Amino acid sequence: MPELRQNPATKEWVIVATERAKRPEDFAPLKIEEKIEAVNHCPFCEGNESLTPHEILAYRTYGTKADTPGWWIRIIPNKFPALVPQGNIRRTKEEEFFRYMDGIGEHEVIIESPKHDQTIAVMEQKQVEEIFLAYRERYITLNQDPRFELVLIFKNHGMAAGTSVRHPHSQVIAAPITPLHIRHRLNEAMRFFDDNGECVFCVMLQKELAIKERLVFETENFAVFVPFAASSPFEIWVLPKKHDSSFQSTTPERTKELGFVMKTILAKLYKSLRDPDYNYVIHSSPSHEKDVEFYHWHIQIIPRVTAVAGFELGSGIYINTVIPENAAKFLREA
Amino acid sequence: MPELRQNPATKEWVIVATERAKRPEDFAPLKIEEKIEAVNHCPFCEGNESLTPHEILAYRTYGTKADTPGWWIRIIPNKFPALVPQGNIRRTKEEEFFRYMDGIGEHEVIIESPKHDQTIAVMEQKQVEEIFLAYRERYITLNQDPRFELVLIFKNHGMAAGTSVRHPHSQVIAAPITPLHIRHRLNEAMRFFDDNGECVFCVMLQKELAIKERLVFETENFAVFVPFAASSPFEIWVLPKKHDSSFQSTTPERTKELGFVMKTILAKLYKSLRDPDYNYVIHSSPSHEKDVEFYHWHIQIIPRVTAVAGFELGSGIYINTVIPENAAKFLREA
Repeated sequence: MPELRQNPATKEWVIVATERAKRPEDFAPLKIEEKIEAVNHCPFCEGNESLTPHEILAYRTYGTKADTPGWWIRIIPNKFPALVPQGNIRRTKEEEFFRYMDGIGEHEVIIESPKHDQTIAVMEQKQVEEIFLAYRERYITLNQDPRFELVLIFKNHGMAAGTSVRHPHSQVIAAPITPLHIRHRLNEAMRFFDDNGECVFCVMLQKELAIKERLVFETENFAVFVPFAASSPFEIWVLPKKHDSSFQSTTPERTKELGFVMKTILAKLYKSLRDPDYNYVIHSSPSHEKDVEFYHWHIQIIPRVTAVAGFELGSGIYINTVIPENAAKFLREA
Repeated sequence: MPELRQNPATKEWVIVATERAKRPEDFAPLKIEEKIEAVNHCPFCEGNESLTPHEILAYRTYGTKADTPGWWIRIIPNKFPALVPQGNIRRTKEEEFFRYMDGIGEHEVIIESPKHDQTIAVMEQKQVEEIFLAYRERYITLNQDPRFELVLIFKNHGMAAGTSVRHPHSQVIAAPITPLHIRHRLNEAMRFFDDNGECVFCVMLQKELAIKERLVFETENFAVFVPFAASSPFEIWVLPKKHDSSFQSTTPERTKELGFVMKTILAKLYKSLRDPDYNYVIHSSPSHEKDVEFYHWHIQIIPRVTAVAGFELGSGIYINTVIPENAAKFLREA
């Protein structure tokens, strides 16, 4: 059973992932032959469905059976989940000092295509729309489980972004806690609202659309820009133009528009930076605070072109070597 | 002039490092030949002193001249500083919404040895002691500048830890702000003190010394353990046993003991994990809150054996695949 543990000094929660536990000696660097062997059989490819757990949801051709070919999006439980669905939801203290609980949650993989050598930047538009519709469907379903506080959809693309699996996929994790990092962000947004009577993201959006120098592009309902204090080169935020605190209230039609927006910006990164590694995360209000006036859901895209070093880890101050206005201009023209 | 910018929504500060600025197209991956050329001439090696800015401080043989051979520790300004000493200390708002200021500060490099192929794990004990004495000297000096709120000493070892320079070195950055990340940690420690009348780190130390299963080793004045909620495999904390909020009050004698402690634990990592990449950071109370009862200076060592992926970036929850008690046992026996 995985465990959630809280550091008593920092109050930050950590998942001790026993299901994917490794022996300490496994961390010595792999030899090249071992690496090659590890990537030979891809469980996410069409035809290899038997190598994965049973599918949770698939978009597939009428008449084809679960866990067989015929799908174009397939969602499966993570074989090495960080959190698992069954366990005790109570938080416990060991000797009244160390707080921990069972690692309860869901951890799913969204296989974005039956084909191995695909990536959103070069997929057909329709396929990308379906990926975002699948996100929406899983998000709404997992958000209904009263035990979960946080449902996070994210993507790791490339080694520097934390994945060695090339087959295009994203993940969703549902967790029974609101972590400090997210609580702090909600508090800052709430404080801005209490001071100004406006959502800080709505104000930022107005400014970015007016100033234009950090804007990459906009569509009817979305704006794509490099934030004023981008924490790394080419960090990008995608915001819905109309105030909305939760991703789950996005209509299917808008979700398709979001697919177009994400394909467009990821294609710009792909072309101009030669397929960089990246992460993206859908930030949305917590499961039990869905509809709030002070928060605004958005997608953060973080190309992993520089490493996080000791100064960033120690201070939380990121060093960005590309001026955000220059990054935006570069991406506008890409 | 570098710039410090604050994200209005998250309130996090970022350094836009114009002195080390790159053109956006420079982020497309380097070809192998370009990489090799970049590492051929090491400016940190003895005899290459003319390739660096003038030294700030050096421990050198009597009679040898500044910026010539004869040194065993040498401190120089970073040639591509994240922050620079001169500028306007005032914080400004652009259109009353975007807050920024000149990137004022100091950014120094501590060259730990005249020899290129050294690392603390295998250095002579005396040399490691001198490194830590040099840290102390620069820490005390930079802490006296009233413009600085934060003086952070840190080390990046290896590519995954954010450095491509193999020559053993550490860095110190002095910054004119207290970043949110550090303020949050101070607040949590303060709240614990207000609730319990004790320093949370002192209590943690008592527990770890009593329980022993996460302890790696201890000396007369220091304890080395894997924290209960270690955020990554083999994360290690080194704490002085006696309450002390600032690194700068460590006596020279204790600083040498710290050198022994650090060499010992880094040698354990070196041997058991085959010279892993790592960062370490000296966490100490802010420059203007040196002597407080609620905070406890310590060193955090983070071996970079796993990548930070989208879930960690989005939630702040880290996934650790090695049970902390197992990591401690492994290191005790190394």
